[in-house]
Amino acid sequence: MKEKLSIVKIGGNIIEDANALNAFLKLFSKLEGKKILVHGGGKRATSIASKLGIESKMVNGRRITDAETLEVITMVYGGLVNKNVVAKLQALNSNAIGLTGADANSITSIKRPVKDIDFGFVGDVKHVAHNAVNKLIQANFTPVFCAITHDGNGQLLNTNADTITSQVAVGMSALYDTSIYYCFELNGVLEDINDKNSVIKQIDTNIYKNLLDKGIIADGMLPKLENCFDALKGGVTNIHMGNTSMLTQENDNFTTITL
Amino acid sequence: MKEKLSIVKIGGNIIEDANALNAFLKLFSKLEGKKILVHGGGKRATSIASKLGIESKMVNGRRITDAETLEVITMVYGGLVNKNVVAKLQALNSNAIGLTGADANSITSIKRPVKDIDFGFVGDVKHVAHNAVNKLIQANFTPVFCAITHDGNGQLLNTNADTITSQVAVGMSALYDTSIYYCFELNGVLEDINDKNSVIKQIDTNIYKNLLDKGIIADGMLPKLENCFDALKGGVTNIHMGNTSMLTQENDNFTTITL
Repeated sequence: MKEKLSIVKIGGNIIEDANALNAFLKLFSKLEGKKILVHGGGKRATSIASKLGIESKMVNGRRITDAETLEVITMVYGGLVNKNVVAKLQALNSNAIGLTGADANSITSIKRPVKDIDFGFVGDVKHVAHNAVNKLIQANFTPVFCAITHDGNGQLLNTNADTITSQVAVGMSALYDTSIYYCFELNGVLEDINDKNSVIKQIDTNIYKNLLDKGIIADGMLPKLENCFDALKGGVTNIHMGNTSMLTQENDNFTTITL
Repeated sequence: MKEKLSIVKIGGNIIEDANALNAFLKLFSKLEGKKILVHGGGKRATSIASKLGIESKMVNGRRITDAETLEVITMVYGGLVNKNVVAKLQALNSNAIGLTGADANSITSIKRPVKDIDFGFVGDVKHVAHNAVNKLIQANFTPVFCAITHDGNGQLLNTNADTITSQVAVGMSALYDTSIYYCFELNGVLEDINDKNSVIKQIDTNIYKNLLDKGIIADGMLPKLENCFDALKGGVTNIHMGNTSMLTQENDNFTTITL
């Protein structure tokens, strides 16, 4: 039987709120077993870009990443956010090591081909070096990934943090019984988007089809769930979606997704 | 007999010149055996701070690091410079992993006590976790340190890159036959500051005393050499100072310092 590995993803809503971040990191540091953290960066990059006179352009929720914007992302995600998260985890006795996909050659991606839109320096994950990541885990380090990868030819690439999470989880499934925890602002996938307590606790392939037929899965949730089922098909054991308290035993009001 | 380990330090003059940096990284990637890179950040932090409306204050060549300046340093040293160096080394098949002292809890420091001057968030190195760094080296990663450490209580601290180099070298000397290469703008320690070819090839304790008596060691070089002798007394085998071509076999015109 494979050892368990938890991969936890937090987004901008937690990163940008110092109290929420500190509370989350306490929960994360207490989470038992081997684990990996993946974080986005979000609005901090936008505000620093703005101060530097760089306009942020978004298309379908994705940042258009020109060379100047990539520099800001590298500074904010790879430096400011990642290193402060690592220092805070160290203070909680969690032996964190902060990474982009370039570090330890852990995540290689391909610059997104230009079709209708030129996303600029945005990468789609090609390969996760699970053995390299495992060397860090086996040395009792807790990898903390920011949303940056590289192309192997010296180019850093801005990469969606949800995708990094699922691809790292798929990669690590070769070695571990892998669970993903997507922490976000909702309590889980909701039956009624206007009722925050209408959490659908279990979703599997059949239930998912049924929810799609009923039109219950809203636009924003659709790509997230498609991404989840891709990860499960890739070998991930189960995926949890909810607020950060799902990392504790006290909260069982979140969504668990399996095949 | 201990295995050899080379610790190479580059400063702002190389970091800030894309051609010089690329040329250096080629040499570094070809350097045989286990190795560590340490880099400063320099003027890039000053120019980005200036764009963000933060004034850089220097006293005796050291940056006064208030909270805003520390954020810029964390962005520039830990993000922009470090991650681009790592990506470039990966393209040269050097399996680099970028670190601050917070990562892997590798370098702990103490916030400098306020005497005449309040340096702000500046750290003096207290402890190098040589076993943690060695886990990375043994896993065939090449650590790339930027000039940031942490206090173990969640606070990042701006730390002199020369000091990080010598302290990491002293720490690693417990496990390795350790050499330092300080790459800088001169060809070595000069007998005549106005003659760039007047390199003093060998300096030991006796020669050093003699040079001091003669007044040959200039102000800027004095703390560097004091730092070198401290490192040698701490167990470092030898220290080389010169331009980056000293990493090749072709150049023997640089300064080597031993006890």
